[in-house]
Amino acid sequence: MTPSADPTPPWTLAARTGRMNPSVIREILKLTEQPGVLSLAGGLPAADGFPVEALRAATARVLRDTPREALQYATSEGHGPLREWIAAHLAAEGLAVEPGQVLVTAGSQQGLDLVGKLLLEAGSRVAVETPTYLGALQAFTAYEPQFVALDGDAAGPTSASLAAAAGARCAYLLPNFQNPTGRVLSAARRDALVEAAERVGLPLVEDNPYGELWFGAPPPAPLAARWPAGTLYLGSFSKVLAPGLRLGYVVAPKAVFPKLLQAKQAADLHTSGFSQRIVHAVVQDGVLERHLPALRARYAAQRDAMAAALARHLPAGCDWQPPQGGMFFWLRLPAGLDAMALLPRAVAAGVAYVPGAPFFAGAADVRALRLSFVTLAPADLERAVAVLGQVLAAALAELAPADRRVA
Amino acid sequence: MTPSADPTPPWTLAARTGRMNPSVIREILKLTEQPGVLSLAGGLPAADGFPVEALRAATARVLRDTPREALQYATSEGHGPLREWIAAHLAAEGLAVEPGQVLVTAGSQQGLDLVGKLLLEAGSRVAVETPTYLGALQAFTAYEPQFVALDGDAAGPTSASLAAAAGARCAYLLPNFQNPTGRVLSAARRDALVEAAERVGLPLVEDNPYGELWFGAPPPAPLAARWPAGTLYLGSFSKVLAPGLRLGYVVAPKAVFPKLLQAKQAADLHTSGFSQRIVHAVVQDGVLERHLPALRARYAAQRDAMAAALARHLPAGCDWQPPQGGMFFWLRLPAGLDAMALLPRAVAAGVAYVPGAPFFAGAADVRALRLSFVTLAPADLERAVAVLGQVLAAALAELAPADRRVA
Repeated sequence: MTPSADPTPPWTLAARTGRMNPSVIREILKLTEQPGVLSLAGGLPAADGFPVEALRAATARVLRDTPREALQYATSEGHGPLREWIAAHLAAEGLAVEPGQVLVTAGSQQGLDLVGKLLLEAGSRVAVETPTYLGALQAFTAYEPQFVALDGDAAGPTSASLAAAAGARCAYLLPNFQNPTGRVLSAARRDALVEAAERVGLPLVEDNPYGELWFGAPPPAPLAARWPAGTLYLGSFSKVLAPGLRLGYVVAPKAVFPKLLQAKQAADLHTSGFSQRIVHAVVQDGVLERHLPALRARYAAQRDAMAAALARHLPAGCDWQPPQGGMFFWLRLPAGLDAMALLPRAVAAGVAYVPGAPFFAGAADVRALRLSFVTLAPADLERAVAVLGQVLAAALAELAPADRRVA
Repeated sequence: MTPSADPTPPWTLAARTGRMNPSVIREILKLTEQPGVLSLAGGLPAADGFPVEALRAATARVLRDTPREALQYATSEGHGPLREWIAAHLAAEGLAVEPGQVLVTAGSQQGLDLVGKLLLEAGSRVAVETPTYLGALQAFTAYEPQFVALDGDAAGPTSASLAAAAGARCAYLLPNFQNPTGRVLSAARRDALVEAAERVGLPLVEDNPYGELWFGAPPPAPLAARWPAGTLYLGSFSKVLAPGLRLGYVVAPKAVFPKLLQAKQAADLHTSGFSQRIVHAVVQDGVLERHLPALRARYAAQRDAMAAALARHLPAGCDWQPPQGGMFFWLRLPAGLDAMALLPRAVAAGVAYVPGAPFFAGAADVRALRLSFVTLAPADLERAVAVLGQVLAAALAELAPADRRVA
């Protein structure tokens, strides 16, 4: 039998695929692979900050001591000693959990997918911040929920908006150095949000990939510490060790852990035992304790470099706050400018960023954009921001005076 | 604020979780971790057959030459050189695909989950073999389809039953050394099945984790080679290299690749670049060409050892066919015996297997069970089958003569 020549494709896709879209960020990342483009777009940790020597030693040790165990099928829950380490590590941050509540995942993006599979279905509501992490919108969208955009103020989402979302399946919150805004929730705001959530019976999904990347002081204790039975907590090794290992975790209340585990079994059987043992070997050696202070100092210096560059090069009317941790500045352009519309011009001039619009579940702020300060070296940061400043100044100069006034 | 003392859990789970169950096999595997139990249950490749030295050398090379690239975020499609190798490898087996049609996944179980996300939703129909791979039933169940059990004969599912499933979103087939039955589809049966599928416009999902583990002759060319535009093809490195790396792939027709890729992005951003580069370093060194003949010879010898042990130790009335590849014998017990009911007794006597019932989407054959011949060494295989024979003989002796006659 010879292969059919171009038959009519017989595929009928699930309705959910109509809501799925290519990741705007990943499409932009392709653009920025053009030679000569300085990218402030990616959420990529600084690759020369990876603890390569520690990972090399840990990998050699795993393949010397337990090669067959590391390379064989393993339990869906995750590698026992790594689950114990995670539980102990979280306890030190104020979140008392048992190792049996820890599910190891393929990065925290998989945690978001599993949370969606556990809680969401067509038409169910999920409350999200304004703006929120684009990857969470993508993960949840596959389960066809309705997004409820929480109102916020400068300190984050308000407890009133959270209470108004009662009846949603969950509220998805990023308390620490949020992607994209960089904003950290104060202890008082956390208390108020949890009080409101508990009062109306609205479960929380707390995503914390950036909490270890603080510059001045550690962030307040997690929401999950305030309401353990009502909070799913997501953590990640991507930002503190290396994303290429694809290792994260979900901490689940005992009432929902079994179904979360079944979702994990069905999704990929288990997370790579090889990666789990390598990371366990690294963390039990105390590598994080030595590595994190250096990483924080490095990222704080990069934050400072970008803050200085923004102050030096951006035209009047741009607005931003230096973040106290994490990886991003959130920049608001002067009235009349549209970050998405300006992107091709910026890339042509040699600098890339991520427009803010895709981070909004509801009405988007077209003037917003996200800048990473950790991917480029300080000298390149300075050059990139200078180019961005020129592009913005030129665009502003072209605006009719009426546009500027009206906007 | 102190943590709430045992508040009423506010969780409302998605309806799909009501259909999700713990993996029977994974629960049995826990049972068999008791000391003294010889397990014929797991689908675990022989761990002392893993090419540990080759993986060690490849890992060292990756961490020496491209540590930062391997540890950084990577593209959702997969590592380019690995996708090229996979396409070339499949071409050599008669399946002409472009690297751009290859999506690298976290094992082929993730491939099944993504296929479910792409094609299935509440109430849509998916046709499966009788019996079929339990993990596929689990992956698909999360998307709430109706399963249509295909009728089969000794040579596999019939083309008439496939044609009768017209209107289903897809038919899921394992042509090579099927899990659980070990059955391989002949070239003639493949032709007939594809002819029927194409005639009625029923897309195929072809799962091929075991195809490289042939003992006498390679299996016929894949279904996807016969109908490229109508077939999603899943492959895996778990059985030929090592499952702990969690590396598989889906080959998709160009019409559906973009949505499959978006499902992958949302599910976990991308598969570990570290694992992908290690496996690419291994395969481009020709390790598979050297490793596979030894693995086939080893598994063939194990198959022979189990066939001899079964003939020697099982009571009359048991039925099985020695498989021509893969990892499993499918055993049918004498009338009156129930494989699930007998399992606790077998485990108490020191041997474990997987009852056949969970592999059936429709009415189950309670007399069937699956035995792995690759996990235990030959001497242990012999002992395990001897114990199984004693358990079965004792159970048969307890049957009332009437039971035996009636059943």
